Amino acid sequence: MTARPGGRTARVRAQVLDAVRAELAEHGFDALTVETVAARAGVHRTTVYRRWGDVGGLLADVFDATGGDDWSPPDTGSLTGDLTALNHEIQDAYTAEPSVMAALIAASFRSEAAESAQRRLWDDRYARCEAVVERARHVLPPGTDARRLLVAATAPLYHRLVLLREPADPLLPGEAARAAVLAAEGGAFVRL
Amino acid sequence: MTARPGGRTARVRAQVLDAVRAELAEHGFDALTVETVAARAGVHRTTVYRRWGDVGGLLADVFDATGGDDWSPPDTGSLTGDLTALNHEIQDAYTAEPSVMAALIAASFRSEAAESAQRRLWDDRYARCEAVVERARHVLPPGTDARRLLVAATAPLYHRLVLLREPADPLLPGEAARAAVLAAEGGAFVRL
Repeated sequence: MTARPGGRTARVRAQVLDAVRAELAEHGFDALTVETVAARAGVHRTTVYRRWGDVGGLLADVFDATGGDDWSPPDTGSLTGDLTALNHEIQDAYTAEPSVMAALIAASFRSEAAESAQRRLWDDRYARCEAVVERARHVLPPGTDARRLLVAATAPLYHRLVLLREPADPLLPGEAARAAVLAAEGGAFVRL
Repeated sequence: MTARPGGRTARVRAQVLDAVRAELAEHGFDALTVETVAARAGVHRTTVYRRWGDVGGLLADVFDATGGDDWSPPDTGSLTGDLTALNHEIQDAYTAEPSVMAALIAASFRSEAAESAQRRLWDDRYARCEAVVERARHVLPPGTDARRLLVAATAPLYHRLVLLREPADPLLPGEAARAAVLAAEGGAFVRL
C-alpha cells in the first residue's frame, strides 16, 4: 500500500480494515464476505473487490497493517529468552479472540491472495528474526543457518496450535525455544 | 467403519473411496464434491451424505483406509534413524500427487468432520510412534516425554510443507530428526 497517510485512500483503507476486524470479532471467519465488509465500512463493494480482490486479500492487508513496518523481534539478552518471547507472541496472536492470524491461515487454504500474503509475511518476519541469531553467533557453532534454527524453534507452536488444534500451552514457548537452542549448540543447523 | 469385509457395505465403501481418489487425482481438492464422487462411484448421493456427511468425511475415510490398522513406525535400529524415516514418510505423503493428506488438511479448515478425523488420525499415529521413543529410553534422560519429542521431531516438516508451502527438502527429514534427538539428549523434553 502506497497511500498517502491521511489522504482519502488511506481513510477508505482504515474504514475497510476496521470493518474486517469488527466482522471477524462478531461473526467469525466463516461468515466474512466482501459484501458484509463493504456494507459495514460504508463503501461500494466494487471498491473492495478492485482493491483487495477477496476475503484473503482483506485479511492479508489487516495483518500487514497490524504487524506494521516497525515490528522487531524481542531482545531479552539471551538467545533462548528471545526465542521464548517470540513464541509467546506467536501463541498469543494465534489464540487471540478474534485472531487475524488464525483467520489468515484458514483463508490461505481457499485464497491465493491470502496464501501469498501469508508467505510474504512469514518471510518478512523470519528475515527480521535473523537478528536474534546474529546476536548469538558467539554461542553457536560456525555455519549455523539462522533460518533453519528459527523455523525449528517456532514450528512446534504452529504444529500444535494450527494443525493439532491444541489449546495454548504456557510451557511450550520456552520448551520449543530451549530445544532449538540445544539442537543448534549441538550443530544440528550447521550448513557448510 | 464396521462393515463386514466383502459385504455390500464394504463394496460400496471401496467404490466411493476409489472415486474420491480418482476425482482428487483428476480435478484436485477444490473441485471435490459429494455429487461428483457419488456419480463416479455409481451410488446415490444421499447414500454418500448419510454415511460420510461431507467432503471432509470422505477424505477422512480415505485416509483411515490408506493408513490402515497395520501401520507401524519405522524400526531402523536407532532413534535418529527411526525419526528420519518417519519424516520421509510424512514428506512423501504430503508431496504425493494427489496427496490425500494435503487435501485432508485443507478440508480441516472448512469441515468439522475433516478436522476431527485429522486430529484422531494424528493422535493415533503419535500414539503408535511412542514405541520409537520407548525403544530408545536407554539413551534419553529419565522423564523424557515421548509425545513432546515426537511432535518436535516432526513439526518442522509440517510447518515448512503445509504453512510455509516450501517444496520437499531432501535434507529436512534428517535435520529435524537429529535436532530433536540432540534436544532430547539435553533434557529439553523431560517432564517430571
